[in-house]
Amino acid sequence: MNDQLEANKAIVREYYNLAFNLKKPEEAVAKYMGPYYRQHNPGAADGPEPFIAFVRGFAQAFPSMRVDMKRTVAEGDLVVVHSNLIREPGDRGMAAADIFRLENGKIVEHWDVLQEVPESSANNNTMF
Amino acid sequence: MNDQLEANKAIVREYYNLAFNLKKPEEAVAKYMGPYYRQHNPGAADGPEPFIAFVRGFAQAFPSMRVDMKRTVAEGDLVVVHSNLIREPGDRGMAAADIFRLENGKIVEHWDVLQEVPESSANNNTMF
Repeated sequence: MNDQLEANKAIVREYYNLAFNLKKPEEAVAKYMGPYYRQHNPGAADGPEPFIAFVRGFAQAFPSMRVDMKRTVAEGDLVVVHSNLIREPGDRGMAAADIFRLENGKIVEHWDVLQEVPESSANNNTMF
Repeated sequence: MNDQLEANKAIVREYYNLAFNLKKPEEAVAKYMGPYYRQHNPGAADGPEPFIAFVRGFAQAFPSMRVDMKRTVAEGDLVVVHSNLIREPGDRGMAAADIFRLENGKIVEHWDVLQEVPESSANNNTMF
């Protein structure tokens, strides 16, 4: 059971890393996306092509963008990644919570919640 | 192990429900908050009082607010809740991902990511 969770987390981290850090969304899709991709991010349609187009467009706008994955939480067929999405050097970036659902070792569904990291905070803990 | 995860999820759901749906943040804190509370939401300071004040203020501004918990994901000492925070009737609301860390059955740390649900979407799946 824990082996399966660790395997699912590794798949999700590598998918995310390939797409957003190594800027190879086609390779991420070929290796890790399932036979369908149900998308809940309101900015993208279902399926692999809109995901690839989204990453490409984002990488063109922000060539040095990177995703810093802070923690993952996995249970059953779900993996949550909490991360800081940095668009360019000096950017405080966005806080991101991505939820992925897997079937048979492939990613088939995605939800996310995104928020700009504000300049000031009422605590000293960072958003991460 | 799974019993512990289910117990942690029940604690977090009841904490959230007591505070935001039943509008009893003091009771939520008394029952479920640990000896410290490390807050990563940039709008609130550490500890129980800022949490209580935040919920009270929010409930005054939006007396019929409610949190609709869509899914929970638990692993180790963490519980993630993905929910729709509705401020008033007809509100599309906000998407929320809350991450809670527990020690000895009490909540001691909290992160969140919040995003307005947009009016239109590129897919028909909702953000949830």
